[in-house]
Formats: sequence, C-alpha cells, structure tokens
Amino acid sequence: MRKKTFGVILAGCGHQDGAEIHEATLTLWAIHKHGGEFQCYAPDVKQHHVLNHINGQEMNEQRNVLIESARIARGKIAALATFSPDNVDALILPGGFGAAKNLCTYAFDGPNCKVQPDVAKAIKAIHQAGKPIGALCIAPVIVAKVLGNVTLTIGQDSTTAEHLAAMGAKNQPTQQGEIAVDEANKIVSTPCYMLNSRIDQIAEGVDKLVAAMMQMM
Amino acid sequence: MRKKTFGVILAGCGHQDGAEIHEATLTLWAIHKHGGEFQCYAPDVKQHHVLNHINGQEMNEQRNVLIESARIARGKIAALATFSPDNVDALILPGGFGAAKNLCTYAFDGPNCKVQPDVAKAIKAIHQAGKPIGALCIAPVIVAKVLGNVTLTIGQDSTTAEHLAAMGAKNQPTQQGEIAVDEANKIVSTPCYMLNSRIDQIAEGVDKLVAAMMQMM
Repeated sequence: MRKKTFGVILAGCGHQDGAEIHEATLTLWAIHKHGGEFQCYAPDVKQHHVLNHINGQEMNEQRNVLIESARIARGKIAALATFSPDNVDALILPGGFGAAKNLCTYAFDGPNCKVQPDVAKAIKAIHQAGKPIGALCIAPVIVAKVLGNVTLTIGQDSTTAEHLAAMGAKNQPTQQGEIAVDEANKIVSTPCYMLNSRIDQIAEGVDKLVAAMMQMM
Repeated sequence: MRKKTFGVILAGCGHQDGAEIHEATLTLWAIHKHGGEFQCYAPDVKQHHVLNHINGQEMNEQRNVLIESARIARGKIAALATFSPDNVDALILPGGFGAAKNLCTYAFDGPNCKVQPDVAKAIKAIHQAGKPIGALCIAPVIVAKVLGNVTLTIGQDSTTAEHLAAMGAKNQPTQQGEIAVDEANKIVSTPCYMLNSRIDQIAEGVDKLVAAMMQMM
C-alpha cells in the first residue's frame, strides 16, 4: 500500500519573508514520524521582498519563492502550478510571514487580501476532493479566504480573529501545542508562532495536527 | 538555577551552501525538549558561494553566513567572534555543506583544510573549559581538525573516515539515529544526512546527542 502522501506548500525560507523554518521542518518531521511521505511545493514567483533576519531591514536583493523553498525541502520540491489533488492525500501550509506576503497579500490587505492563483487552486481542489487540509500559524487566513465558512485557529490574537470573521470563517482560540479541528470540512490548524512558543511546543502542535489529519484519510 | 545553555554554530541556511536546515532546527528542538536554552552563533563572513537548491547550480549572488543563519535562529544570533565559553555550558555544530565550505575548507582541501579562526577558537575554548561538544553530519571533521586525537562518527563513509584518521582522530561507524560518545573528551556525534535518512531519524540522533551532552554537564 502506498504511504499517505502530504503536499506541503512552502513560501520561501525564513519567517520574516518566507516560510517559518521551524514550522516547515517540523511538519516534514511529523509526517515521517507518523509513517507518511511528503512532496513539497511552492509557487514559482518572486518573493515580495528580502529581509535581513537580524535587524528586519529590507535588503537590495530579489529571491524566488520556489528556489528559496528548496532549501527547506532539500531539493525535493515542485512548482505549485503542477499540483494535482490526485497525487497527494492531504495538504499542509506552514506559516511565517511568507505565507502572508508571498502566498497571499494578507500582510498588506488584511481580510481584503488576494490569494496567489496556484495556492487558491490547490486549496480548492484538495477540499473538493474531500482530502484534509492543515494550516499552521498565520496560514489559516489563506484557507479562510479561499474556503470561507470553516473553523480555524490563529491562537489568541483578536485582530486576526476579527479578520477571519470578516472572511466568513470562525476562530477557535488555542494555546501553545493545541490544535483546532473542523471535522466537517477536514481542516486542522495549530497556532505555532502566533503565540510566544518554545520550539518543542511547535513540534507538539504539528505532531497533533498530522496525527489528526491521518485519522481523516 | 540557570537552564543549561547550548551554543549552536550555524554555517548559513541550506544544506548545499550553508547549515543543513533540518539538522539545525532539530538541534534547537532537542535542546528545548530536554529543558535547555540555546544561543546561536555564526561567523560574520561571506558564504563561499550561493547554490540553487533545485539544480545545484551556482547563482550570481553573495550572501553573508551570519545574516543567512539568522533565518534559522529567528534573529536570536550573535557573531561568533563574541563567543565566550563562560556564557554557555556546551557547544553544538550542525552539519550541511556550509560546515565544510564556510566554517572550514574541508570540502576543497580534505584533511589539509583550514578552520575559520572564530570557529577554531570557540572549539578550543569550550574543550579547554571541560564543556561538551556535539557535532552532526560532516561537522565532526572540523572538531577532528581542531582537537586531533578524539573519537567521532561520520556514519559509514570510508573516504571521510580516512580523512578523520589523517587528522589524528578516529571514526566510530554508526547507523541512522545512532550516536558516538567520546566520554574522555566529552564529544558526542551523530551521522544525520551523512547516511540516507528519513527526517524522523535525524530527530532521533539529535535527541540522543543532546541527552548524552546533558549527562556530561
């Protein structure tokens, strides 16, 4: 029997301008830990910007989301435009500001954000195929924008919770290492660095998220 | 009582030209899991080169080891030149080609390599202070070059094992998830991606390495 395969959508490499590295790495770890396989994807687009992760200042550089994401995936990555729900059993979106800057425009436009077309297409397709979706940290805003009336968690942040409501979704408050499960829509989420967390708490939340998604397959 | 603090020396961000991201992230995870704290360091030097992690081709860019390492450390990083053995209880070097290209010249010069001065100074100082050292993947070659007559593991690779011998050190062969312990010298190592490994096996090895180092403090 084929192992359960998770598509993982990365948004670059580094929490300020790309995918949050701990969340992305621990997602891959949890998938292997639970006996699954992963295939990483990223949109083949320019990063919104490049930030120096020591001082937060913008650097005079351009980087590509797919190429930088390959650093986390160790090269095992495909352009998100090639994504088909037939090739995976589930989809996970780790967080980091890249999710809100490169996968959608939430960091700039809030609930009026636009979702990158390959990302929106992948989320719609996997949902229509009845397969589960996992979203970490700030990534639930993307799922809310695409699917609307679903339940997600973004931890305890009231502004982001209001934005989820404005997009037709509902926030289920959580603490470190907890998950929110929307059984009807097969959506699992965990707050990660939306809360002040130790990295073992990130692992705990992602471990629970992958376990819950495995139960939905 | 102050929590046990591990210095972690990073070599950039991405296994082909910097620190191996899974090994570095899981090092931070294991430290928190065992109740410790970490402080990341990296030398403030230019990367040897920048590689596209999809096709392995060199990119026409320059990046700085300290600035890129900050992506893994979420900004909690200091220049290795400021390192003092008084501020930490142990030192860990994750692997990735960056360890062999930016922290020393092993990738180009084999056993005749030179170790970056801040790196050599930190390893010597922590060893002289009687505090434990952990080395992952290819990083044991750096410890061998600096300290000479110690026992380390680089997995099963016979060429690298010969290089360790040429530098005066001894290789203890290991399989996935195993560690080699040199009790007399307080040095622990684990092969990680020197072997074809699943990411949960990387976690297993790093978890054991941090646990063994905690016992030495």
